[in-house]
Amino acid sequence: MKDEQTTVSNEQPAILGRRRFINTAALTGLTLGVAACADKKGDAAPAAASGPATTAQHGAGGANATHLKPGELDSYYGLWSGGHTGDVRVLGLPSGRELLRIPCFNPDALVGWGITNESKKVMGTKADGSLRYTVADTHHVHASYKDGNYDGRYAWVNDKINSRIARIRLDYFVCDKITELPNVQGFHGIFPDKADPVDPKINYTTRVFCGAEFSIPLPNTVGTEDGTKYHSLFTCVDAESMDVRWQVLIDGNCDLTATSYDGKLAATNQYNTEMGVKYEDMMSAERDACLFFNIARIEEAVKAGKFKTYGDSKVPVVDGRLESNKDPKTALTAYVSVPKNPHGVNASPDTKYFICAGKLSPTATVIELAKVLDYFDGKLESPDKAIVAEVELGLGPLHTAFDGRGNAFTTLFLDSQVVKWNVEAAIKFHAGDKSAKYVVDRIDVQYQPGHLNASQSETRAADGKYLAVGCKFSKDRFLPVGPLHAENEQLIDISGEKMVLLADHPVRGEPHDFIIFKRDLVKPKQVYALEDFPLAVKDPKESGVTRNGKKVTVKLTSQAPAFSMREFKLKKGDEVTLILTNLDKVEDLTHGFAIPKYNVNFIVNPLETASVTFVADKPGVFWCYCTHFCHALHLEMRTRMIVEA
Amino acid sequence: MKDEQTTVSNEQPAILGRRRFINTAALTGLTLGVAACADKKGDAAPAAASGPATTAQHGAGGANATHLKPGELDSYYGLWSGGHTGDVRVLGLPSGRELLRIPCFNPDALVGWGITNESKKVMGTKADGSLRYTVADTHHVHASYKDGNYDGRYAWVNDKINSRIARIRLDYFVCDKITELPNVQGFHGIFPDKADPVDPKINYTTRVFCGAEFSIPLPNTVGTEDGTKYHSLFTCVDAESMDVRWQVLIDGNCDLTATSYDGKLAATNQYNTEMGVKYEDMMSAERDACLFFNIARIEEAVKAGKFKTYGDSKVPVVDGRLESNKDPKTALTAYVSVPKNPHGVNASPDTKYFICAGKLSPTATVIELAKVLDYFDGKLESPDKAIVAEVELGLGPLHTAFDGRGNAFTTLFLDSQVVKWNVEAAIKFHAGDKSAKYVVDRIDVQYQPGHLNASQSETRAADGKYLAVGCKFSKDRFLPVGPLHAENEQLIDISGEKMVLLADHPVRGEPHDFIIFKRDLVKPKQVYALEDFPLAVKDPKESGVTRNGKKVTVKLTSQAPAFSMREFKLKKGDEVTLILTNLDKVEDLTHGFAIPKYNVNFIVNPLETASVTFVADKPGVFWCYCTHFCHALHLEMRTRMIVEA
Repeated sequence: MKDEQTTVSNEQPAILGRRRFINTAALTGLTLGVAACADKKGDAAPAAASGPATTAQHGAGGANATHLKPGELDSYYGLWSGGHTGDVRVLGLPSGRELLRIPCFNPDALVGWGITNESKKVMGTKADGSLRYTVADTHHVHASYKDGNYDGRYAWVNDKINSRIARIRLDYFVCDKITELPNVQGFHGIFPDKADPVDPKINYTTRVFCGAEFSIPLPNTVGTEDGTKYHSLFTCVDAESMDVRWQVLIDGNCDLTATSYDGKLAATNQYNTEMGVKYEDMMSAERDACLFFNIARIEEAVKAGKFKTYGDSKVPVVDGRLESNKDPKTALTAYVSVPKNPHGVNASPDTKYFICAGKLSPTATVIELAKVLDYFDGKLESPDKAIVAEVELGLGPLHTAFDGRGNAFTTLFLDSQVVKWNVEAAIKFHAGDKSAKYVVDRIDVQYQPGHLNASQSETRAADGKYLAVGCKFSKDRFLPVGPLHAENEQLIDISGEKMVLLADHPVRGEPHDFIIFKRDLVKPKQVYALEDFPLAVKDPKESGVTRNGKKVTVKLTSQAPAFSMREFKLKKGDEVTLILTNLDKVEDLTHGFAIPKYNVNFIVNPLETASVTFVADKPGVFWCYCTHFCHALHLEMRTRMIVEA
Repeated sequence: MKDEQTTVSNEQPAILGRRRFINTAALTGLTLGVAACADKKGDAAPAAASGPATTAQHGAGGANATHLKPGELDSYYGLWSGGHTGDVRVLGLPSGRELLRIPCFNPDALVGWGITNESKKVMGTKADGSLRYTVADTHHVHASYKDGNYDGRYAWVNDKINSRIARIRLDYFVCDKITELPNVQGFHGIFPDKADPVDPKINYTTRVFCGAEFSIPLPNTVGTEDGTKYHSLFTCVDAESMDVRWQVLIDGNCDLTATSYDGKLAATNQYNTEMGVKYEDMMSAERDACLFFNIARIEEAVKAGKFKTYGDSKVPVVDGRLESNKDPKTALTAYVSVPKNPHGVNASPDTKYFICAGKLSPTATVIELAKVLDYFDGKLESPDKAIVAEVELGLGPLHTAFDGRGNAFTTLFLDSQVVKWNVEAAIKFHAGDKSAKYVVDRIDVQYQPGHLNASQSETRAADGKYLAVGCKFSKDRFLPVGPLHAENEQLIDISGEKMVLLADHPVRGEPHDFIIFKRDLVKPKQVYALEDFPLAVKDPKESGVTRNGKKVTVKLTSQAPAFSMREFKLKKGDEVTLILTNLDKVEDLTHGFAIPKYNVNFIVNPLETASVTFVADKPGVFWCYCTHFCHALHLEMRTRMIVEA
């Protein structure tokens, strides 16, 4: 245990009194598993009443800053994880407007994601050609780096249900690769590296790290009941090939993930170091950990053949467990002890610190990365000595964002607040200077915030303009729409000393996490090149039906407002592959293609080619029509599919 | 043909000159099928430059009216069709915020729509239990009426791809029934009736009318190539049972649908009276039609057994073709001739008129309903005599909304404008009073508008406050996000003489149509009753695994932050039905349930019960976890599914 004093806040006594009281009650309640429910209805109100009286001022006056005039463009992009929808949402900020949903893990009937052969190949199919999975649970989206800032190449997002990672191309804003991680379950935290740990010329992302939250038998092929035989792994995926490079067997589990700016360290917070298999057992330890990985050493070990494989997987797994890593000078991992049940680990934009939020502890723990490297060099007696602050922030601290001016912003789930605090002041306070006022401001949010992120927060270019807060419950903030409430993504102005609440944005549950970056960091492309598609039908004259026994290929092109063939004939039982190239090259002149009763609908963007394969099992006349508005004569844009009995 | 003069506008010559010029060029281009493509890039700019110079004034100053302060509630609900996503979107207005997406025709991985047995039953399955369809194309959403205003019971939406109609319960905001229409393809227009045609006590919706756009062989079981054997039908669905009551065989096709306030008439506009099977053939007639249905007579004919059935369908089909309905006194239908290729038919809130927009003709046609009834009574020599105005509005008129003060608002697709015009003035102008100035105002919109609707527009309570315009192309109005652009739903203040553009809202393609109504017209329920679900597990003590050979039932309950069983065991090959009841009764305390690698994820709202059925075909340990944030210990909310090999 760290010294008790560090968990004492340096705020004025009155506030501390209220929060200490709630603190005790809520934490007791939590272990009984009922507090947050009761808390949901009433906590925010008393917090506003007795907390620092900033809410009223915050609410007034600031609203217009976010509201753009018609036609005015946003200055930032936001990439929001789409939660169970399995997609990534693209927002414009500060307006909060949703500009696009990029389907990744789940089918999307607009795009034809999961319908076209091209998208099915990305998503993964079973032996019979049907989709392997149609559900997902995306939590965290992060983008590729160069020189410590986003470089507009890629973004990645996790699927917790089926332990998959998807990559988004940020030129076309499409998902181009999905990899299912072996040997793990509950893949949660994800973060790209920012540089190579060894080669300074590689000052950009080449790896993506993935933490697995659930522990399972290795391999998971029999229903072993004995939890002591379960393990959790930390995974490295190649940013380009999307192959799994290596995994690390660990003690405890992985929650969130962070990476250092120099590429040498990655870390995950661990909320279940006990490796309990029942809810009650996950709460038994005094402290949990922030687990550091020495990337260069792990890759040396893999190169030296010091690994195992499990089951059918060929992925090398190195041993990162405590017992095998006692000598810091050879250790692959370092377990830094942090208060019980932490949630969230975030890298400060000054490149110096990782900050772990306490969740069940009202604290944030500041870990100095130079000291972690010292530990791996044998210069620090224990990894815990890398902790430079452990300070009280409020109830239920979860995630931390930064303004690039030395301040951190941490969500307080139970207090329904965001607290702004100064990291260097917190370090001074922790070092013994009890006059150091590290808490700068608090603002009530509506309600129960999870993730938050500031503009450019997790880059060297953190600019301290906007803070978005993902509130898990909206309660009374929007018109009622039945049992399923929207969540509330709130936008806060953090450019001044005091935080100012700008706007409430309802969102479909539940986005979890997001990043916000300047609009000039991406260079979107809006028209495809014909050559990008091997199957492209490059001229309407190539249109036609070719037959090879039962196998039939139909080639079509689209040019508003007509398809290249007015009709085509098939025979019942044909195995048909239909290829459609959109020869319209005007930006945004997208066409759709639906076949009634055949469960086909997809779109082709300008100069895009897509294909579908189906069995013509229903005789009759089927009007294939353009489903994406294209032209005044869009309704007439059809072709007749005649299936002879 | 109506007299030529009626297509002459009464605007000042300069504007008319520009529009006449574009008119000619664009219509020529249209028949060649290329104009709108070229038009997309440049049309809006010249329109703004040479049209009435109202845009600049409109754009400035008005913006703040729509922007609510944080926590402020919207005053209107909007129900937006979700396009290819197959859902219905619930918006708050004037903020334009999306509060909910209600899955209907397509799976939704958040809710578990298409995953749970309950939702699969609504959606429809094949013999093997898999979903019959996973794509849809929703266009129009309309709600149930009482006394000429919305009564908050139901909304309905069409699926054009598979000719299905879905019903939404507006208490829980869920889809509860879906019906597939027999004998038709391309079901497009949809509108509920507003009263019974015979019984004045039934002053509320009991029927929903559905128009089929594509003509097909009857029955559609062989690939008949001969288009003269194809037919289109108009369908009546029972609002309560959702059974198909009857259908009408017609000449030509059905596009949009409208109903009269007295329940006596329904109508559909017809853009392909030629019944062409190729794009070029659909353009050959001089005029098309607005086809009226005499509901009472149709139901008498059905009662008298004057119908046929087709194929496997038991639905009575009466004959509404021209040839069989020459005597107005017994006719089931009346074909009112309107200019070529119309789009959109809308009922005015004064209950007197249906207005057909011209699309390829720059006109709107006003049809007086009392005169249509006169025709059916033998008092009018021809149905065309029911036309009381046919006036020029601009290029590409599509749909019309109303302010309840005698003004109509029509989208001009090619002009990228909304034109405000006075209906009674148009009637006077048409009657010969060339001094009647029927065009009141024009506003440029961004860009190429399709549907529009005003607050309460299609009710007797039209209040003339807000107008939403579904612009098919957003072009430069939002940050670029790759090839697939958002569409632009614009909000316009119509409370004054001049229209004022308030805001641009990007939306995922393509919503098509929507309705806007006052928030007090619905009474949402936010917590279910246990009794609503026959399978409810009413007490955690009922939890357990019961086995009947290979058939296994797992009963579970949820109460934050735990499921009632910490683990449950299955054997490989078991056919499992898992039933989960959420015993949390606090509003919005929703839980999720995911089974890794088993493609299961769904949510249970407060006191809701849902079930899934699957085969336990993969041995191992599977951490079923709560996917919907519920509590500070949400991450720990899991149960272990152990499948023994």
